[in-house]
Amino acid sequence: MPAGPAASRRVLGRRGLLLGGAAALGGGAVGALGATASAEPPPAPVAAAPQGPVGADAVPFHGRHQSGITTAPVQAHAAFVALDLRPGSGADDVARLLRLLSDDAARLTAGRSPLGADDPELVALPSRLTVTFGFGPGLFDAIGRPEQCPAVVRALPAFATDRIDPRWSGGDLLLQVCSDDRLPLSYAVRRLVRDARGVATVRWTQRGFGPARGSEPAGTTPRNLFGQRDGSKNPEVGGALDDAVWVRDGPDWFVDGSMLVLRRIRMDLDVWDDLGREARELSVGRSVGSGAPVTGGTEFDEVDPTAVDGDGFAAVPPAAHALRAKARGPAERMLRRGFSYDDGPTADGAPEAGLLFAAYQADAATAFVPVQARLAESDVLNLWVTHTGSAAFAVPPGCAPGEYVGGRLLEG
Amino acid sequence: MPAGPAASRRVLGRRGLLLGGAAALGGGAVGALGATASAEPPPAPVAAAPQGPVGADAVPFHGRHQSGITTAPVQAHAAFVALDLRPGSGADDVARLLRLLSDDAARLTAGRSPLGADDPELVALPSRLTVTFGFGPGLFDAIGRPEQCPAVVRALPAFATDRIDPRWSGGDLLLQVCSDDRLPLSYAVRRLVRDARGVATVRWTQRGFGPARGSEPAGTTPRNLFGQRDGSKNPEVGGALDDAVWVRDGPDWFVDGSMLVLRRIRMDLDVWDDLGREARELSVGRSVGSGAPVTGGTEFDEVDPTAVDGDGFAAVPPAAHALRAKARGPAERMLRRGFSYDDGPTADGAPEAGLLFAAYQADAATAFVPVQARLAESDVLNLWVTHTGSAAFAVPPGCAPGEYVGGRLLEG
Ligand code: HEM
Ligand code: HEM
Repeated sequence: MPAGPAASRRVLGRRGLLLGGAAALGGGAVGALGATASAEPPPAPVAAAPQGPVGADAVPFHGRHQSGITTAPVQAHAAFVALDLRPGSGADDVARLLRLLSDDAARLTAGRSPLGADDPELVALPSRLTVTFGFGPGLFDAIGRPEQCPAVVRALPAFATDRIDPRWSGGDLLLQVCSDDRLPLSYAVRRLVRDARGVATVRWTQRGFGPARGSEPAGTTPRNLFGQRDGSKNPEVGGALDDAVWVRDGPDWFVDGSMLVLRRIRMDLDVWDDLGREARELSVGRSVGSGAPVTGGTEFDEVDPTAVDGDGFAAVPPAAHALRAKARGPAERMLRRGFSYDDGPTADGAPEAGLLFAAYQADAATAFVPVQARLAESDVLNLWVTHTGSAAFAVPPGCAPGEYVGGRLLEG
Repeated sequence: MPAGPAASRRVLGRRGLLLGGAAALGGGAVGALGATASAEPPPAPVAAAPQGPVGADAVPFHGRHQSGITTAPVQAHAAFVALDLRPGSGADDVARLLRLLSDDAARLTAGRSPLGADDPELVALPSRLTVTFGFGPGLFDAIGRPEQCPAVVRALPAFATDRIDPRWSGGDLLLQVCSDDRLPLSYAVRRLVRDARGVATVRWTQRGFGPARGSEPAGTTPRNLFGQRDGSKNPEVGGALDDAVWVRDGPDWFVDGSMLVLRRIRMDLDVWDDLGREARELSVGRSVGSGAPVTGGTEFDEVDPTAVDGDGFAAVPPAAHALRAKARGPAERMLRRGFSYDDGPTADGAPEAGLLFAAYQADAATAFVPVQARLAESDVLNLWVTHTGSAAFAVPPGCAPGEYVGGRLLEG
């Protein structure tokens, strides 16, 4: 139930959010919080900032898991490129394509030109370049293994608040390319797409950004276009993150893989601008400045849904985003690894910007879907955000040198 | 005389470039080189890389000159936004607009929200944010001072190789916004455009990038999408740069200003890919790796047009870009401060990328125009580059606190 500018202006004040707007949005369904989630320690101490030129930093391509998922900190730039297989492509074409692209990715991320190219200068400083592959339903169909496509990847449910444009949706094969520098990123996308051209066309490309590397001390949570620290309560590195992200039960080709849900979410910045600071903070339940719960504590503490103010009113609206989004149990946990996008302004000067929300999880059916269903039902943020693109992908595990991503599916 | 892929493939070899391709392009007109240009010392020694978080770094907005012109190193990201004044706008509207935008720019670049906004988080780390204003012919007309618009800004000549699309051309008021971080850049553009909306519409926006800050040691010349070091022979900081860039003779409102020529230049990367390294280097006269002349020396040395190889042939084609582009005298010098753009790939996987060539100079009529005329007549690079957008602006001087950019024109 997205509301227009008029509705959002109606809930400018704290009381409005608590009593009017939030209630109107169906708030009140604050469930019991799982013990697992509330027992999280704060993240590791902040590392020192990079000391010298960092362009040469490289992230290994080969490994048990694909890179670009738990790679931290999140790189400054991303391109998500969705390819569609040309009609008539079969398992052999797909295997050849994945073998070629895996080889390209291994070389590029190590700072070398792909085979057949001679451009050492364009990628000698990969700046933590990663290439991550995801498989959409069309790929499973093309290789004659439609039953291997997870049901949630084949058909993510529709949500009441969706305003999905096919232009930013779907895709047979996703390339997620990330780097701290636009030059190697641009080169990698160009060479990967060039090598895919015989077998695939480009369905859409979406580019996003986060903080420049070295802008804040390492370990600082990025800010989104609302100015909020976004990602504070991600599962912490170690057990919680591994449990949330990696496939453990599943067909052999999928174990150690993940699922990616990518949503293009428009943020109505003009209307957000008109909100006072208090309303902004109550909409999520956290201070915009520090990211700490408005109920007290530090950025990495939980918002307390039971806290009351001096007059005995709830301190945070039950429909506050952090309360609604919080995992109700371990199966709902996901790693949010999103990027801001800004394709504006429009000709009349309006913003055209928002969040490329990218969430990795072992099973989107138990993580993204129930969480987003809850948000679609009631979330104060719905006043200013609209989902306009949607795509889901099965993300295969990593591969060893000499192998290729997806090899266990293609040859299994 | 731009040539298609077939022509470019014909000149793959060195002999081809020297004897066939280059001659066909009308090479041979290597003029005498001015003494001023050849007496340049190498640039200052390389500074140390940034040591800690650099997001808080700020560039002063106020001063004799506008910032964002000689600000070095060039920031990692730029947005060029061309505004058109709404029909009927007059001198009062323009003065009010410039006063407001100057105030916004002063605050934003210092890391503060503009008046009426409350978003300290979005710009607290300006990351060397700069905002530079340029005036197109329509602005001079709107304020009733058409005669103050430099003739070259009003009508840049057409060149034989031009393939200009009006979609990327012209504009009454340019905002050049640069930063090392996309977040403050995005915020600054949004707030500036928002404050301009009443008086102006957005004609076009072009976004570009250079190397991430801290990727290479400070002082390293950026690479373009061909992989070349681009900017090596820019006028060096100090006398040569000041002489090249700042208006000295001119109406009072313009002294200490500059002129900006912005060209959108598509680079045919697919065809470039098919060239061998030798052909690539001969096309400019410099090594792609080091940027040094193929005739010997270091990156900051001149290409020697008289050098011959062992067989007595010219070592560099007379139509090599560096030879053709080189200033024939001080009045031709300009500061190239361009950014790469990448809006690709297209649906069929082709690149859509190139250079936002941005040149600052005291007088485009004596600098950009003759140099570009020479390049249009003959330049090996024409085989792979096409100018598809064009705009020129008078860039007023800076202002002191309490004043605004353009004030001396509006109130003179
Ligand atoms: C533009 C849209 C969105 C914005 C601006 C936004 C912003 C935020 C912010 C500021 C926080 C608090 C800091 C943090 O823990 O990261 C947060 C938390 C969270 N958000 Fe979002 N969010 C958006 C969409 C979504 C969506 C679509 C989902 C999933 C369906 C989601 C899931 C979560 C989760 C799981 C948390 C952590 C809750 C907790 O455990 O405390 N968000 N979000
Ligand atoms: C996409 C198009 C272009 C590319 C890829 C390109 C590339 C280069 C490269 C690699 C160099 C040698 C290194 C250096 O000194 O910077 C160079 C030099 C130069 N270019 Fe370009 N350039 C392009 C367009 C232009 C245009 C349109 C102009 C002006 C009309 C221009 C003016 C110059 C000048 C003045 C030099 C220095 C020559 C010297 O003094 O040695 N370039 N360019």
